[in-house]
Order: sequence, then structure tokens, then C-alpha cells
Amino acid sequence: MKKINIGLLGFGNVGSGVVKILRERRALLSQKIGVEINIKKICDKDLASKRNVFVEKALLTRDAKEIINDPQIDIIVELIGGLHPAKEYILESLKKGKNVVTANKALLAEEGKELFAQAKDCSKNIYFEASVGAGIPIIKTLRESLVANRFSSIYGILNGTSNYILSQMSSFNQSFSEALKEAKEKGFAEKNPTLDLEGIDSAHKLIILAYLGFGKLVSLNDVFIEGISRISLLDINYAGELGFEIKLLAIAKKEKQGLEVRVHPTLIPKNNPLSSVGGVFNAIYLSSDLAGNLIFYGPGAGQLSAASAVVSDLVDLTQDIKAGLFRPTLNTVEDRSIKKLIKINDIESRYYIRFMALDKPGVLAKISGILSKFKISIASVSQKERRKAHTVPIVMIIHEAREKNLREAMNVINRLQIIKEAPIAIRMEEV
Amino acid sequence: MKKINIGLLGFGNVGSGVVKILRERRALLSQKIGVEINIKKICDKDLASKRNVFVEKALLTRDAKEIINDPQIDIIVELIGGLHPAKEYILESLKKGKNVVTANKALLAEEGKELFAQAKDCSKNIYFEASVGAGIPIIKTLRESLVANRFSSIYGILNGTSNYILSQMSSFNQSFSEALKEAKEKGFAEKNPTLDLEGIDSAHKLIILAYLGFGKLVSLNDVFIEGISRISLLDINYAGELGFEIKLLAIAKKEKQGLEVRVHPTLIPKNNPLSSVGGVFNAIYLSSDLAGNLIFYGPGAGQLSAASAVVSDLVDLTQDIKAGLFRPTLNTVEDRSIKKLIKINDIESRYYIRFMALDKPGVLAKISGILSKFKISIASVSQKERRKAHTVPIVMIIHEAREKNLREAMNVINRLQIIKEAPIAIRMEEV
Repeated sequence: MKKINIGLLGFGNVGSGVVKILRERRALLSQKIGVEINIKKICDKDLASKRNVFVEKALLTRDAKEIINDPQIDIIVELIGGLHPAKEYILESLKKGKNVVTANKALLAEEGKELFAQAKDCSKNIYFEASVGAGIPIIKTLRESLVANRFSSIYGILNGTSNYILSQMSSFNQSFSEALKEAKEKGFAEKNPTLDLEGIDSAHKLIILAYLGFGKLVSLNDVFIEGISRISLLDINYAGELGFEIKLLAIAKKEKQGLEVRVHPTLIPKNNPLSSVGGVFNAIYLSSDLAGNLIFYGPGAGQLSAASAVVSDLVDLTQDIKAGLFRPTLNTVEDRSIKKLIKINDIESRYYIRFMALDKPGVLAKISGILSKFKISIASVSQKERRKAHTVPIVMIIHEAREKNLREAMNVINRLQIIKEAPIAIRMEEV
Repeated sequence: MKKINIGLLGFGNVGSGVVKILRERRALLSQKIGVEINIKKICDKDLASKRNVFVEKALLTRDAKEIINDPQIDIIVELIGGLHPAKEYILESLKKGKNVVTANKALLAEEGKELFAQAKDCSKNIYFEASVGAGIPIIKTLRESLVANRFSSIYGILNGTSNYILSQMSSFNQSFSEALKEAKEKGFAEKNPTLDLEGIDSAHKLIILAYLGFGKLVSLNDVFIEGISRISLLDINYAGELGFEIKLLAIAKKEKQGLEVRVHPTLIPKNNPLSSVGGVFNAIYLSSDLAGNLIFYGPGAGQLSAASAVVSDLVDLTQDIKAGLFRPTLNTVEDRSIKKLIKINDIESRYYIRFMALDKPGVLAKISGILSKFKISIASVSQKERRKAHTVPIVMIIHEAREKNLREAMNVINRLQIIKEAPIAIRMEEV
């Protein structure tokens, strides 16, 4: 049986998972694909730490060049993460005639343009199924299965850490910091979870999905990003009473004026399937014009789940290499009906807003008067029980409004003497 | 740009959809795939009926041979449905060196063995993404994306008609016949909906999914099939009170003793995502050992949705044809840990059961005494309000029991003087 050699850059969690699967499923895979995938070399800076898979010492190296320069290696699997030296390794590997499999969402989102151009120049492919949603096959789906479709929107719950924390707050009435502590203890949050909690990880993944769905590789700077660290239990509970869950939602949505690409906490109606995506699970909701509205749901992280996706990419590549040909992945085509990216100030959305105001007559009249001045109309309002002495939470749902207007109104309201805390505004989506 | 000729057998609903997409997305597809898909000929018995797409007369024929024997046609798309002459057309086309795309679940389920063998002999591929779940890319997912995975279970809501009826009954308190009438009016049920309502269509699709998931092409006779026509509003309401929805579930599940392959109405807990799949939507729930539990959800029928899947198959084939090579689809590999198919009598399940009994003292004691004799233990019981004079519904949830025992117990209970209607038993699944 023909043998196809691969080299692994990065022998961490997902890397060990890939080795584990290729070893333990060797027979199954060979039977299915008609070639043997052989791990020729594995590179990691740290060769001392224990992994949950045995590997012969001779396979290991600390020198990436040993892999990149090995002419017998057909595919490199980049699982180092981070921008550098991952980027340089991939560029170099492509130049050396290797195909690339990577799970590196940050790198693709931030440097994808250069990487994809280089791959094209070298007549090689970059596969990246594991970069979004781990084992959920959303990359192949967008690229191949829905090849004839145009998309009006892509919604994703793409970050397991954030979703775990929000789910715990909502289901068990935990505070943000309690939920975060638990997430760390369970291994669902990294020691420094900033990228996850501040929405950067979701934004990286959203950029990849939007690239496949709309043919536009948006830059990170063009994505509006707001994380979950300002979400309080109070708002989760009030939203719950009103029939909504708060989720960190990644949104790429076509409007008449252009494309919105944004990540932020979002109120979703409880009867929407996305609202019941709990814990570390991910889900992607696609609105396509032929296949309709589709949802893909599964664990968004995990050693074997991500490794499963990496292996499916490897298999795709082996089929072409076996046949001795280069078959480029299908081209992404830019949706030319999209004229521009819509800035966050220009979006129109419904909002949940909360004010902490003095419990005095005329407060509501004052607030609603200001909102009305900014053309913001109130859909519902409820004044909650008193919280601290003299301060009452006022919760409103407001109809579709322009973000700019909302922000200005909130600023004006915030300056009122009767307002005792910075007001909260959370966007809403029907999905 | 290279042109790849296809021939359409069947110019009905999905067939017109395929033509529509290939026409209206010609530019998009060419850009993405680098070849032009050209419809060279379309065959249908009925050329008089109006379609929602314009086609030049010269393209149309009533003679399938014109397509099958045309050496310039690379791919035939079989959308006739039914077993004959679809089977003969496909076999003949393979022999003539054509690849095949089909949406014909019945044919694949019942004659798949011969068709796949013929394809292999001829070094041609049969693609069938549209056969299950229309635009939901479940075939490619099982075959390619989850290539390294082993499955413990596959659950599907695979028939839109049945699901629509059950959803209407549950959500709007409609009777079975009211819901069926409405489904027909809305075009969600065929004039003769037997295949849909009796579970045959779901069974066909389940056979295909089980083939990809477990590598076993089960025969229709080996699938236990029970439709929804005996489901009453009464049971839907009682199940609802207990926290369950009733869904027509297609189940392929590995147990220690072997594989269960069955289709029947099933109580699913309301907090399970499958229970909220409403209307004509389909969903497939896969338990895989690497990628974890995944759910795929979307419209399970519809002209463009199914045609979207057909076009994705066409695109896959064009990529190989363009490269001038035959690249067989990945092999399915039999799961050898499956020793046999488990007969319905030998499954173990929880059950919802209902008796209509005389409202007399000692009735419950009698029934539960018999159940206990058959080693069936009751998890909960509720005696409902009186329905007809002297008759009360007794509803029970019973713990895991062997189906054989349950059936025998039900028979014995049915013979009691105090029992006034044939008892109802509906299986339950945790999913």
C-alpha cells in the first residue's frame, strides 16, 4: 500500500490527538482511503512533557527544518498555534512543495491572504477544518456541500469557554467570576482566557466562516468585537425573565448597505435553537438561499474532536497525492453584491438596555424622553425591585434603532444626576 | 473553460431545481470549480407539464437511451425515483462509463449492494447526497468529514411529512387526520402518503446512514418499522405532560449484542435538541467516538434544498473528471464489532404505555401484578381523568424492559375484562 509521509509541527494537545488517531485507526483508515498515512517526524520545543500517546524517540525533533526540508514529507500539519513562527513554517513548507493542514484560526484570520496566495502560487492546498468548531465539519460544508448557495447570514456560537461561562451563569445562577473559576478548574478555560472571553477567538473563527460564505477575507480590525466580561448575572436573569438567553454570538450578516461582521453578547429568544446550545458546545447557523436554514452543532473543542477534523483534512489530501495530482480546493468567490463593511455605529438592531436610576418620580419620563429625542422607540419597559438603597434597575427592550443613536442617547442619559451606574446595552438578534 | 456534460433522467420537482441552479448560478459555479457544467439532455416521460424553469426544446427527450448512450455525457443524474426503471438506467449508465448522481433513497436502500458493486466494477462513482436530509450535508459528513470516527448511534428525524403532522398535533392540538389534511393542502404530504407515514421513507434513509456509519447495508426486511398513523392526540398530550415529545425516530444503535436498526414513534425528553425539531425539518444526531455528539439540522425536503445537494455531488464529480482521473469515493468499512442485527423482540427500551380500563377498585393492582410477572418495573404511573363512561386512561412509564416481555405482558393485560381498548406502547429514547 502506498505510504504518504506527514510531518507534525506541534506536539501538544491536538497534535497528540492526531498521532493517537492515526495510530489507533491505522487499519480502519487504510481500508477506507487505500493509502497509509505515516508520521515521519514530529517537532516540538518541549519533548520532555508526557503525552497520552507513545511515540518512538527517533520520530521526535526540536528542529522544524528537519520536517520542512524533508523531501519525503508530503504534508505538514501545523498545530503550534500563534502567528509566529507558524506563519513562516507554513510559507516555507508550501515553497518546498508540501500541502498544509492547520488548525490555526488566529493565523488564518490575520494572515490568511498571504498564506492562501502563497499556496496558490505553489499549487498546493491549505486545509483547515479544525480551525472552527473542531470536529463539526463546517469548513467542508461551506466550501463544498453548499457550493451553489449564497448566504444571507452566518451566526455562530464559536467559543466554548465563553459559552460555558454564560451557560453556568444562566443555568446555575453563578456569578461571572464563579463560572470562570469553575471553567478553569475543569480545563474549559486557559490560565489567561483573554482571547476567549474578549471575543477575539470568536472573531478569528468568524473571519474564516465569512471568508468561505461571502468570499471576503475581512481584517480583524474590521470586526466589531465585544467580549462577555461585562455581562452580569443581573442582566442574564432579567433577559431570562423576558424570554431570552445571552450568548456570545459571532455574526456575519448581509444587509442592503453591506456586510456586518461582529462578535458580541447577544440576546437570543429562548425558542431559537441557538439559545439552547449549552456548556462548551458550539453551533453554527447558516442562512443559505438554496439549502435553507441549517444548524451544525457539536463540541467546539477537545483533543480528539479537533484531531478528528485534522485527520479528515489529511485524508482529503492523501486522495489527491495518491492519484498523483494537485486538485486545488474549490475557489472562494467574492459576493459582489456586498458593497462595503458596515461599521458598528451604522448597524440597526434591537437592544436590551438597563439603567440604575434613583427611585424618584419622573425618572422614567426623563429617560424615555431622551430616547425619543434620538428616535429610539421602546418596545417594553419594566422597573425592577429596588436593589441598593434608592437605586432601581430599569430594564427596556427597544425596537430596531441605529447603534449610533443608541450610543448617543445612552451617553446623554448617563450624564443625568439620577443615573447611578453606567447604563448597559446588549444587542438582540432574531437569528 | 472545460465543459462537462451531464444528462438528467427525471425532470420533476428536484430535476427542475437542478436545472434552475445550474442556469442561475452558472457564473458562480464556473468561478468556483473551474469547469462548466453543461446540461446536454433531459429525459422525462412527461414533457407537457409546466416547470418553473425554461428549457430549450432541443434538450428534451422522452427516451432515456438518448442520454445513457451518449458518449459525450460524463454524468447522469437520476431523479426519476422508484425502483424501476431507475435501477436499470443507473446500471446501464455505469456500464457506459458514466458517473451517477442520484437522490433515490428507496433504490439505494433496497438495491444498493448491486449498484455499488457495479459502480466499483466500472470504476465509476455513485453520489447520493440528496438522498437523505436534502441540503443537509450528512452523506459527505459521514463519509469524509468523520472518516476516522466510529459511531455508537445514529438518530434521525428523517421524514418531513411525519414530523410536520406530529408537530402540528403537539403544538396546535390537531388530530392526526386534521394535521394530515393540512399537510396535504400545504404540499407537505403526497396524495398517497403511505411511504412517509408508515416509516418506509425514514427506513430507506436510515439504511443509507447506517451503511455509511457502520459499513453494513441492512436490508429493508431487517429494519423494524412502525409509522405514526396510530399516534393519537391523547398520547401526545400525556407524553407532553410528562415532559416528552413524540417523534418518528430512525435509530441505528450499537449495543453489546449487535446493531439495532429501527424506525418508530419515540418519546424524547423535551430538553433534548431533537425534540424541538419542528415542522418539515429534519435532524440527524450522530454519536461519534472522536468528534463527539453532533447534530445536523435543516429542511429535509424542498426543490432547491435537494437540488443544492445534487449540485454539490455534481461539483465533486467534475473535479475528478476535470483532472482526468477516477478517484473512488472513500470505502465504507464494516464495523466488525457488530456481531448481528438485534431483532425488535430482543431490544431493551423504556416504554410509555397506556391502558383504557374500567374505573373499578383493584384495576391498577391487577395490571401492575401482570407487569411484574413479566419482570417489567414501573417508573411512574398516573391515572387520568375519566374519558368515557366508566373508562379511565392509565398512563405508565416503565423502566428498561425487554420488548418481548413487554409485548407478552401487554397481550395478557389486553385479555383482561377490565381493559376496554387495545393498550398503547411507545418506545422511549434518551438519545
